[in-house]
Amino acid sequence: MPADALSSALLPAGLHDVLPSEAAHEAAAVERLLAEFAAQGYRRVDPPLVEFEENLLSGPGAAMSKQTFRLMDPHSQRMMAVRADITPQIARIATTRLKNEARPLRLCYAGQVLRVKGSQLRPERQFTQVGVELIGALEAEADAEVVLLAVQALTAIGVPHLSVDLCVPTMVSRICAGLGLGEEEIRELRAALDRKDAAAVAAVGGPAAALLESLMTASGPADRAMQALAALPLPEGAEKDRRRLTETLALLRAAMPGLTVTVDLVEHRGFEYQTGLSFTLFSRAAGELGQGGRYRAGAQGEARGDGKGDGRGEPATGFTLYMDTLLRAVPAAKAPGRVYVPHGTSWESARKLRAEGWVTVAGLAPVADAAAEAGRLHCGHWLADGDVRTVG
Amino acid sequence: MPADALSSALLPAGLHDVLPSEAAHEAAAVERLLAEFAAQGYRRVDPPLVEFEENLLSGPGAAMSKQTFRLMDPHSQRMMAVRADITPQIARIATTRLKNEARPLRLCYAGQVLRVKGSQLRPERQFTQVGVELIGALEAEADAEVVLLAVQALTAIGVPHLSVDLCVPTMVSRICAGLGLGEEEIRELRAALDRKDAAAVAAVGGPAAALLESLMTASGPADRAMQALAALPLPEGAEKDRRRLTETLALLRAAMPGLTVTVDLVEHRGFEYQTGLSFTLFSRAAGELGQGGRYRAGAQGEARGDGKGDGRGEPATGFTLYMDTLLRAVPAAKAPGRVYVPHGTSWESARKLRAEGWVTVAGLAPVADAAAEAGRLHCGHWLADGDVRTVG
Repeated sequence: MPADALSSALLPAGLHDVLPSEAAHEAAAVERLLAEFAAQGYRRVDPPLVEFEENLLSGPGAAMSKQTFRLMDPHSQRMMAVRADITPQIARIATTRLKNEARPLRLCYAGQVLRVKGSQLRPERQFTQVGVELIGALEAEADAEVVLLAVQALTAIGVPHLSVDLCVPTMVSRICAGLGLGEEEIRELRAALDRKDAAAVAAVGGPAAALLESLMTASGPADRAMQALAALPLPEGAEKDRRRLTETLALLRAAMPGLTVTVDLVEHRGFEYQTGLSFTLFSRAAGELGQGGRYRAGAQGEARGDGKGDGRGEPATGFTLYMDTLLRAVPAAKAPGRVYVPHGTSWESARKLRAEGWVTVAGLAPVADAAAEAGRLHCGHWLADGDVRTVG
Repeated sequence: MPADALSSALLPAGLHDVLPSEAAHEAAAVERLLAEFAAQGYRRVDPPLVEFEENLLSGPGAAMSKQTFRLMDPHSQRMMAVRADITPQIARIATTRLKNEARPLRLCYAGQVLRVKGSQLRPERQFTQVGVELIGALEAEADAEVVLLAVQALTAIGVPHLSVDLCVPTMVSRICAGLGLGEEEIRELRAALDRKDAAAVAAVGGPAAALLESLMTASGPADRAMQALAALPLPEGAEKDRRRLTETLALLRAAMPGLTVTVDLVEHRGFEYQTGLSFTLFSRAAGELGQGGRYRAGAQGEARGDGKGDGRGEPATGFTLYMDTLLRAVPAAKAPGRVYVPHGTSWESARKLRAEGWVTVAGLAPVADAAAEAGRLHCGHWLADGDVRTVG
């Protein structure tokens, strides 16, 4: 059996070993993303891999229930769950241990999540999530801050051709509610809009049909979409969403005039738990890199452990990046040169080479041909008489 | 309920949230350790959090069976296990996917492990392991390389008062076998030696009693211990262990003359799966920081998946550091200065401050007193009229 087939037979589907060059690439990218978050005041927290099921899967976490592995804790005799998403854990930390910290509270994280099933788009069942949460701020400035931070961080690690797709998943619901549609009709409309199925929207849209069709066709490059949106007659709630979108876009334009921004006025899929301005990050090369948006942190109250949640929680926004797709868009950094240091080289000589930026690979026994040995060990260089020489 | 009690009630025993300053401290230390490993040619691999139980718990992994959580994989209908130790995974990768890579193979890793129970010394059930494996080298130079690398890396992250305790856990077995003791007697002797119980050693040691007592009392500072050891009459196998210890110590002395080295000639506990020179890393402040030593990678053959393992595997050595204890020994780096940038500050002005090394914390709305707001948000500085001013 070839090594690759052998290895994949050894591991469960959707789980894999990250091998040398790829592992270094991912680690360097994660490190740089976290450095960018830290530079804007986001402080790192590390929640555990497992928690009590009832905490991890309450509130927004409930969405991941079917994707979550369970474990029995022999200590407490209670069920635990392996996290399938880190976001609810950060909200829990913010609203419990850090509930007395000054707001807005800026937190960031990086860690592994595990899922019961892979999806068609993401067959992996384990991947790295990296992200931020900005908790306790209602302002459009907060919405703009997290979008700009995501763009800044992705640009810093070398993602080319980046674009941001803004949406306000509450707008359609508010339009429908404002025009008196029932829950079942709204659900059908949502499905039709997610399919971008104009005929179905016309068929089930009733009084909202014309407006929703206009929203659907207006979606696209931000300036054109906002112009079209400005001309539409919106019910009051949706009008608030329009103002927030306009305001946030203006803040993005002021900070990063060259940023490619599109607006999707009917998007809902993937944003079921978002309560306001939301966004998806794209790269032309790799597709969707991550997403984010507004939600209510600790909205269910259960996570507070006192059963006295107000059902509203704190205003919050943030984003999550998926390292598996993201890395496909990022060129690996050039690895530093490897120099073979033959057997008998002093520790001090090797240390000096490392201080100059070389990776040293020590010979553990004498060899006849140091250049050949260097080549065998993937070193482009070897040390001879105190000089670094180049193989070949 | 105070926030801390509330939080600990929320999480299972032995699991905890790593909060801001501690999480950054750990991340920076892990990053630096891996950079030191990489500088000596160790390439990073990242095995998954879970694997099929039969692979993860075969060979040396079997030792962790009772400490390992199991999960049913609905995809394959087979049992999976959450790793309680990363070392067996690295050995698996080396002997399967990387079996055709040139030897010696140098690999490093950092990751989370999960255990069913905490111990008295380490109540945590989840912690970070960081380490290296050097696979395919028999030489004393390999033993010395991993000890020196551990010392170098720990020194680089600022561990003070570091010492290395060398041992050869095979020596006692070889002495006992050479003097004709049976398996049961050897087990009893091991237990007595682990307790450093001289009376019991004399009682059950039979023909080995005098020699083992000498080994026990000779243990201590390396030079004195080696002098005492040199004078003892050893059976052939144990004589080989003595030569390896002498040779390795000489290599350590040549590279790092100032290193504090002790030798324990009877240590066994914690080294049940070691097959040669082993070591423990200590700091006066924090106790045991990690351990390492020789083993056979892929020794059981099962991990090769073809049932044709030769029962011997490849010679290997390495070490694992436990970040939880280690961080207690390491001073946190000074955090960069935080500067509050009031509402309305341009993105470009904030970017320039970050390029100068500041952490910027953006005001999301106008405030009357920027200095007070800076203080409230844990910023020692604020930006006014383009200048960074100091709070208080």
